[in-house]
Amino acid sequence: MPQFLDTTLPDFEAAFTALLSAKREDSPDVDTVVANIIADVRARGDDAVIELTARLDRLELSPETLRFTPMEIKQAVAQVTEKERTALALAAERIRAYHVRQMPEDQSWTDPEGATLGWRWSAVSAAGLYVPGGLASYPSSVLMNAIPAKVAGVERLAMVVPTPDGVINPLVLLAAQIAGVDEIYRIGGAQAIAALAYGTATIPPVDKITGPGNAFVAAAKRRVFGKVGIDMIAGPSEILVIADKDNDPDWIALDLLSQAEHDESAQSILITDDAGFGRAVADAVETRLQTLERAAIAGVSWRDFGAIITVRDLDEAAALSNRIAPEHLELCVADPDTLSEQTIHAGAIFLGRWTPEAIGDYVGGPNHVLPTARSARFSSGLSVIDFLKRTTLSRMTPGALRAVGVAAETLAISESLEAHGLSVAARLSALNSSDGDS
Amino acid sequence: MPQFLDTTLPDFEAAFTALLSAKREDSPDVDTVVANIIADVRARGDDAVIELTARLDRLELSPETLRFTPMEIKQAVAQVTEKERTALALAAERIRAYHVRQMPEDQSWTDPEGATLGWRWSAVSAAGLYVPGGLASYPSSVLMNAIPAKVAGVERLAMVVPTPDGVINPLVLLAAQIAGVDEIYRIGGAQAIAALAYGTATIPPVDKITGPGNAFVAAAKRRVFGKVGIDMIAGPSEILVIADKDNDPDWIALDLLSQAEHDESAQSILITDDAGFGRAVADAVETRLQTLERAAIAGVSWRDFGAIITVRDLDEAAALSNRIAPEHLELCVADPDTLSEQTIHAGAIFLGRWTPEAIGDYVGGPNHVLPTARSARFSSGLSVIDFLKRTTLSRMTPGALRAVGVAAETLAISESLEAHGLSVAARLSALNSSDGDS
Repeated sequence: MPQFLDTTLPDFEAAFTALLSAKREDSPDVDTVVANIIADVRARGDDAVIELTARLDRLELSPETLRFTPMEIKQAVAQVTEKERTALALAAERIRAYHVRQMPEDQSWTDPEGATLGWRWSAVSAAGLYVPGGLASYPSSVLMNAIPAKVAGVERLAMVVPTPDGVINPLVLLAAQIAGVDEIYRIGGAQAIAALAYGTATIPPVDKITGPGNAFVAAAKRRVFGKVGIDMIAGPSEILVIADKDNDPDWIALDLLSQAEHDESAQSILITDDAGFGRAVADAVETRLQTLERAAIAGVSWRDFGAIITVRDLDEAAALSNRIAPEHLELCVADPDTLSEQTIHAGAIFLGRWTPEAIGDYVGGPNHVLPTARSARFSSGLSVIDFLKRTTLSRMTPGALRAVGVAAETLAISESLEAHGLSVAARLSALNSSDGDS
Repeated sequence: MPQFLDTTLPDFEAAFTALLSAKREDSPDVDTVVANIIADVRARGDDAVIELTARLDRLELSPETLRFTPMEIKQAVAQVTEKERTALALAAERIRAYHVRQMPEDQSWTDPEGATLGWRWSAVSAAGLYVPGGLASYPSSVLMNAIPAKVAGVERLAMVVPTPDGVINPLVLLAAQIAGVDEIYRIGGAQAIAALAYGTATIPPVDKITGPGNAFVAAAKRRVFGKVGIDMIAGPSEILVIADKDNDPDWIALDLLSQAEHDESAQSILITDDAGFGRAVADAVETRLQTLERAAIAGVSWRDFGAIITVRDLDEAAALSNRIAPEHLELCVADPDTLSEQTIHAGAIFLGRWTPEAIGDYVGGPNHVLPTARSARFSSGLSVIDFLKRTTLSRMTPGALRAVGVAAETLAISESLEAHGLSVAARLSALNSSDGDS
């Protein structure tokens, strides 16, 4: 059974604070191991990557076989069923349609002083996408990372995916193909991150690395940050469902379990204004846990981190939601639009009874790479902006420099930066002596 | 003298690669010290902050005097000259006008399947701004960090600025006042970052921390990242000037020196298509170094990291510029607009002969907090977006769920995430049995 909390009980604040601060991730300290792997790849390139892959993935490679050939991809992809192929294509199309709308616009204007100002967005030249092997090797994540990169205009998108014992996930390769990935390497772990960041003889370096991974991958991403850009370091998945009593308890139970089944450290929380409905959901979860394939994982998550919170009203629900700042927020209430306006801090909001969070994992359109561990207070899900950068533009005229130059000079002097001031003063004095007709 | 490179010489590629990879920052390893300071502030709050401030800044504080009072601010600000006040107000107005245009728009649309999709931007609730003490305490940086936060709609903006020996910089306080900073604390170092991230009895925690600082501050920001958001970790300043022979060598020399005077690790590079002009600029730099206030600092930077590169033509200049990915890029050529279209990777571009980079430090309008150390390949200068986060929104209808639900179920099954599939299937089966009239 999960925790039951009730805002009308005197111990609520203490219990809720404890829930918020529960340490859900038990990351082993792998930083030294990872530092050595990165140093090894920087020093020895392909040789280091190949040796580490032989040792860790039990797979013998050579510089010639690091990268999947078009024929290998074609053969693997041919194994995908028509049904899966159609589903993946639909997902890709919807994700692309959503992300195309995120493309920001360049701007340029001339201000009253005559200065032309603006900015210009441009794509990162080369990006790397990490895809985990094994159980967490999700084709949907390939789409969610690769499509925004390609929509942004990234020219070279290199994917790495470990294939322990040589086992390939055909759906992952198909997703890469559909999304337009340019290169796929069968490597993983910290060695793959190092190869993407620093490059090897076979793998040219990239400018930005995104995608989920285990503790080694996360530590490696932290270490190469600065040399390249990285996306967020994702923690265990979370869902908060706010539901009134007019929901089917089984639907809500399934929504809660769809996060719990990801990971023993995942967290599923229900907030409801009806204590009886909360109990009905708890019962429905127990019933589903009797047959669910991943009952072992989901059961641990639900028992250790699950919670059902009874509130007086939906205003109170919104206030608690903002303190939780959930990755995923489902609003299963009669008027989800109004409630949504009150729930400010959330990675993604799913409105109404017909929008289970799982839709957003695959085919909704918005990205499923979202801020966890309360970081929705200050960060956003993955988007095309993560694969773009903005260059600011300024162009002064003699007239504009006359209008603002003295102020710049004054501030430079006040900051004891004489050359700053002189670089403006030299031009101003030329203007004054020539009447500015240069 | 700086390095002279020439693309027509056989050793150019090796020399240019060496220039790109020169290690310019010699950050002491302060990580252990910083980890202890953060742990101390988390454990003992105000007491730890006050003890550390007494020891490091030689300033005795109490919980009551951590924060500047309105009267203290008023008295300090009264010392600012009218000329400085006017300059700061002009700078603030221009920075605000530029950043207001950066506010991104919310979107919402209904797709052909009937799903309503979109996103919503919202401000970070509370942000912290670090301002260094001493020589690097720049009022212009206060404006550049605080104004975007306030334009974004940050409700609570807390600033920390150390005042070693109690020495206050009135212009920094005035800049904070003009920009709308809500709270100012006279603390600095890793202890101030820890206080902002974790909160103390006197200082409520924030969600995001921005602003420059020394090695201790940078290490502390790295450590609290995740608990709160941070801006980039800035390295030493850089400028690349691309100039043809029709420039006054003295102007270009001053532009190069205006970065070199920041820091012995700063880097100033000139690319020109006229070797004689390059030598004239080198001579002009030497002349200015004879009288410049910060000649000692600027001279070391110029000798150790400065470079003058002669190229065959401006196309070659653009290609080299993209490999350098400079923080600041000045295009002092006859047709800067055309050259700007070729120089893709740069934090800020200053076009034409009348736009010295120093204008951008103060009164241009664009932000002067920019990506250094080649990170303009993948990141952008500070903007209002750094103080906002985006929540994605999805709302399915029964019809939309019918259209896309089976694809989601298919992909969930292929990823062995049964509850994901069931959460969709349960709703689809209700629709099928009721003909979707719920």
